Amino acid sequence: MKYYLGVDLGGTNIAAGVVDENHTIVAKESIPTNAGRPAEEIVQDIFTVSKRVAQKANVAMESFTSWGIGMPSYVNPKTHLLVHANNFGWINFPIFDFLKKHTDMPIYIENDANCATLGETLAGAARNYNNAIMLTLGTGVGGGIILSKRIFSGYDLMGAELGHTKLVYNGILCTCGQKGCLESYCSATALIRQAKEALKDDSSSLMWELCDKDLKNIDGKVVVDASKRGDNVAKKLVDQYIDYLSCGLSTFVTIFRPEVIILGGGLADAGEVLFEPLNKRLYENTFAASVIGIPKIVKAQLGNDAGIIGAALLEKYAEKR
Amino acid sequence: MKYYLGVDLGGTNIAAGVVDENHTIVAKESIPTNAGRPAEEIVQDIFTVSKRVAQKANVAMESFTSWGIGMPSYVNPKTHLLVHANNFGWINFPIFDFLKKHTDMPIYIENDANCATLGETLAGAARNYNNAIMLTLGTGVGGGIILSKRIFSGYDLMGAELGHTKLVYNGILCTCGQKGCLESYCSATALIRQAKEALKDDSSSLMWELCDKDLKNIDGKVVVDASKRGDNVAKKLVDQYIDYLSCGLSTFVTIFRPEVIILGGGLADAGEVLFEPLNKRLYENTFAASVIGIPKIVKAQLGNDAGIIGAALLEKYAEKR
Repeated sequence: MKYYLGVDLGGTNIAAGVVDENHTIVAKESIPTNAGRPAEEIVQDIFTVSKRVAQKANVAMESFTSWGIGMPSYVNPKTHLLVHANNFGWINFPIFDFLKKHTDMPIYIENDANCATLGETLAGAARNYNNAIMLTLGTGVGGGIILSKRIFSGYDLMGAELGHTKLVYNGILCTCGQKGCLESYCSATALIRQAKEALKDDSSSLMWELCDKDLKNIDGKVVVDASKRGDNVAKKLVDQYIDYLSCGLSTFVTIFRPEVIILGGGLADAGEVLFEPLNKRLYENTFAASVIGIPKIVKAQLGNDAGIIGAALLEKYAEKR
Repeated sequence: MKYYLGVDLGGTNIAAGVVDENHTIVAKESIPTNAGRPAEEIVQDIFTVSKRVAQKANVAMESFTSWGIGMPSYVNPKTHLLVHANNFGWINFPIFDFLKKHTDMPIYIENDANCATLGETLAGAARNYNNAIMLTLGTGVGGGIILSKRIFSGYDLMGAELGHTKLVYNGILCTCGQKGCLESYCSATALIRQAKEALKDDSSSLMWELCDKDLKNIDGKVVVDASKRGDNVAKKLVDQYIDYLSCGLSTFVTIFRPEVIILGGGLADAGEVLFEPLNKRLYENTFAASVIGIPKIVKAQLGNDAGIIGAALLEKYAEKR
């Protein structure tokens, strides 16, 4: 059996896993990221947690043929620098130079959302398909595209930034500096903002109770739970959110016609209250759907494991650089 | 020298060409389409004009290894039927059955905008690149995507309908039945609609003079010419049009990061009054442009020949079905 080593560098944890040929994680380890530390320390911990998981899996470090790492942002193939990872304060950061101090193995670095999409396609919600699109609905909106079982991230490998495609012409300002990005309307952050705005004009919504009368406690779950319990303000918010998301997805369907669409991140836990109307609305809001159909929208299955599996298997499934 | 046979079936003309290995048209013929005639007659004329151009090029029909045809809409690879070509009144139309009555050659059918994009990439504005996106700004907006010198039209080959991606959330109704499509804001038809609306409230615009005081005579050229001559109403229209188009293109750049963007169709003839501000606005309106740059937007070079060249070379450059 051949084994693969993958790391998911997140804002909260550095998670590493050993993955077998069947795309199954055989061992997993993690340590807190403590983002903000000097890069040397973080990179040292990426190596430490990698060694630790190899030991746990009883696989010699020397037997791995690559080191796959998923992280925010993406490496510019012209400069080999990591473009910008806000959480870490890294801008045009020489990540390869830091990592190479620890190993002679070939190193694959890929955007974390791309890794998660690859992981779900190899072993999760899209394992029966070769062409999938995934959005992760969290603080931001991450996006990944898999074509013929390979990560697709544009000609210069810096594309597929689905969260920063435009959804609302001349819309609200996104954290990226652009107006009307999908992320500004479909992230959990956006839903929370929309809820707070709605609650300004309403004192009777069940959401007030669920957040202990403190707007600081509003999260996606509060909105979804209130909606499930019949609160009209929350139902309207969820309905509007679903319409935004369906319109964003419709553009991707009209371009890519994928076999399946996967949603991950906290909001995807909403379950059928989200997926059933979302599938219906995507059908209504997509060009020629009644003639040529649309792909199904399904929930991600692997959680954080998707990113580890995808990172580990970059050696086999990354786009050629 | 090997020769290729291509046909561009348009609403006005059926144009056929013989193309050599260097992607040059060596002979060209066309006959009026007379759309609305029985399909047998149109298909008969596709064959007639093909034979005629072969004769003109002095190439025996038997020496061609395929027959490539570009036409509106696209063939559903599951049913082998042409999905819908409004101009011709064809819906789920068995185009292959009709064509096969005339020849035993392998037949390639592809969406006409995809053929034009392939033609421009092989021999025109993008001939130095392998990854391009093209929009044709005419009555509607046609779109094509070339990745690694191959047509990309989505997993089921019915995608890349760039004109029907969403530009304005909850925007005006498109001819396709959806709301806010790029086509509804960026086609020549859309610019004409916008001009007519602007002229409702203005009697002093130079556009009135250029259209002989008859709104029926308004076309893209009237708006562009008035803008070039300093008419403020027209300048505002062109400025707004450029902003719409730049936002639509920004989504494609953020996903595909192509090497170049090509604009074809009547509006692309506007020249630098369009391209200079459009390139600038695309830079301003695209995610991370200041960090990773944007591709240049250039004018198509081949006119109607692009579709013929692309169709002829489908044998070599079509996606595998």
